[in-house]
Amino acid sequence: MPEANGSAEYLVGVDLGGTKIQAGIYDPRLNLIGTTKISTKSDRGTEAVLDRVARCVRDAVDECDLSMKQMRGIGIGAPGAVDSEQGRVIFAPNLGWKDIPLRKELEKRLDLPVFTENDCNLCALGVHAVELNSKPRHMVVLFIAPGIGAGLILNGELFTGHNRSAGEVGHMVVLAGGPKCACGNEGCFEAVASRTAIFKRIAAGIKEGEKTELIEMLGENLKDLRSGDLRRAIRRKDKFVEQVVDDAAHYIGLAVGNLINLLSPEVVALGGGVMEALEQEMMPTITKAAADHVLPGTMKGISIVASKLGDNAGIAGGAVLAQRSLKKG
Amino acid sequence: MPEANGSAEYLVGVDLGGTKIQAGIYDPRLNLIGTTKISTKSDRGTEAVLDRVARCVRDAVDECDLSMKQMRGIGIGAPGAVDSEQGRVIFAPNLGWKDIPLRKELEKRLDLPVFTENDCNLCALGVHAVELNSKPRHMVVLFIAPGIGAGLILNGELFTGHNRSAGEVGHMVVLAGGPKCACGNEGCFEAVASRTAIFKRIAAGIKEGEKTELIEMLGENLKDLRSGDLRRAIRRKDKFVEQVVDDAAHYIGLAVGNLINLLSPEVVALGGGVMEALEQEMMPTITKAAADHVLPGTMKGISIVASKLGDNAGIAGGAVLAQRSLKKG
Repeated sequence: MPEANGSAEYLVGVDLGGTKIQAGIYDPRLNLIGTTKISTKSDRGTEAVLDRVARCVRDAVDECDLSMKQMRGIGIGAPGAVDSEQGRVIFAPNLGWKDIPLRKELEKRLDLPVFTENDCNLCALGVHAVELNSKPRHMVVLFIAPGIGAGLILNGELFTGHNRSAGEVGHMVVLAGGPKCACGNEGCFEAVASRTAIFKRIAAGIKEGEKTELIEMLGENLKDLRSGDLRRAIRRKDKFVEQVVDDAAHYIGLAVGNLINLLSPEVVALGGGVMEALEQEMMPTITKAAADHVLPGTMKGISIVASKLGDNAGIAGGAVLAQRSLKKG
Repeated sequence: MPEANGSAEYLVGVDLGGTKIQAGIYDPRLNLIGTTKISTKSDRGTEAVLDRVARCVRDAVDECDLSMKQMRGIGIGAPGAVDSEQGRVIFAPNLGWKDIPLRKELEKRLDLPVFTENDCNLCALGVHAVELNSKPRHMVVLFIAPGIGAGLILNGELFTGHNRSAGEVGHMVVLAGGPKCACGNEGCFEAVASRTAIFKRIAAGIKEGEKTELIEMLGENLKDLRSGDLRRAIRRKDKFVEQVVDDAAHYIGLAVGNLINLLSPEVVALGGGVMEALEQEMMPTITKAAADHVLPGTMKGISIVASKLGDNAGIAGGAVLAQRSLKKG
């Protein structure tokens, strides 16, 4: 691996997603200095995406009036199965990637040490270390987005299990025989509470003649429907959308209860696009449903919080990963 | 705490249950030398039960032709919430105990160092250390009995979380809105796959006119029905019992799938009375349902096994706990 420059002190975090790439520059105390975002363009092929990641990093450094020589290393998250030790992306369907040597390719392009991780794990690391100052000893970070994922922090460290695949909470069955999930099973948490599941229920409701403000707002086909539109519809007193969102929040709370019963984490933090858009609408139901499902007496000192890091969780986690890996190395 | 005798080398494991107390004597290499079992008689009150535990330990030592002076320490599991650091049983409904200083009381009676743990955790420790030689780095041990519980071994050590209550997998909701559970919720894993749940479904089926060999075997009221009777009925080609047991096995497999998706343990071991009686009948369905519910590609190197320790898991875990705690101390 390339050696970090002795006087270099800044860290780069990169969130490589299916639609966009974000890079953030952090100082040694993990304060965010600046970020850049560009689209991924995965249809242009792997080489093009790798070049774009490199460009995004250089742009972010330039945006902060810094030079590449002042960077110590890069931590990057990819959406899929990542072999962190080998620095390879095993499988990332959103990118169309299979067994890509991400670390090697980026080190070649940027001449800096690169460390890789699954995106959910990286986000969890960011929420834990940057937002919560590494205080919780055991923590689950849950991301409610088009899909649902989680990262686990156990004994203060990222826990990834035997196959580095721990945290696949989106496919925990909570309603056996329930709605079909993209994974092929039925009643997965993701199939009843993700953005995809919420949107599906709304589309089905409209077909059945439910009235909703969303049609007035976006037209019959709900073109470009986003989580924020649900919030706006609820604020316009849309009872149907309110019910659909509340049902999803109930399942999120039930799943949080499952996780507390199973792992007794000090903190469960909730992030992802759905939570960002609907925190106020969902948190009361989530908190109540979780408390209702946790065994009596085992909730003491455990808090359920909405993460404030939003889109920056991934880049923050990247900076943390780079910093910790360089310290160990 | 009382000091261990310098030449003492044997370890005592105790499994304190709601109906019986078992004590086992182990040599330093954790070979079982001998055991004693007596009934708990919790209706006689706390003092009487503590005296009985002490008697059971002395009897086991005598049974092995050893003396108390040859014992180094005692590890004991109790069915409920246990504060291991303080050596107190916080709450054990089956014993009618609330905040009992188990360690102090036993050290007074037996003049040996005593270490305490929740019974499921202790059993998990026994299966991991004695049966599997501490090989799996991450492991879930699941007990299917009248209730369902689990112990988690993560990074080679017992994981109990923030409130020492991790592993309450029996109350993971897998069928939201499903059968009522003793905890007050609906569709808990325990409410669809425990011995209690299986027996309830059999009683309900009989009420609805299902034919079963069990009536011929035990009479209309299924007096003293045990898990072993289910095995015998299935071997007599009882289609109804076979279906009920297979449905429970399906849910166990589904829950194992949830746990693998969540924790990616190297081994999931299954124990408890139901598994002991019905291993052959249930394992194929459990293994298949688990594989069906695990995300593609994440099952590599993970095995699902039936524990062979049976009733001895708790005493084995007690010996391990005592040995490790004495080493640390």
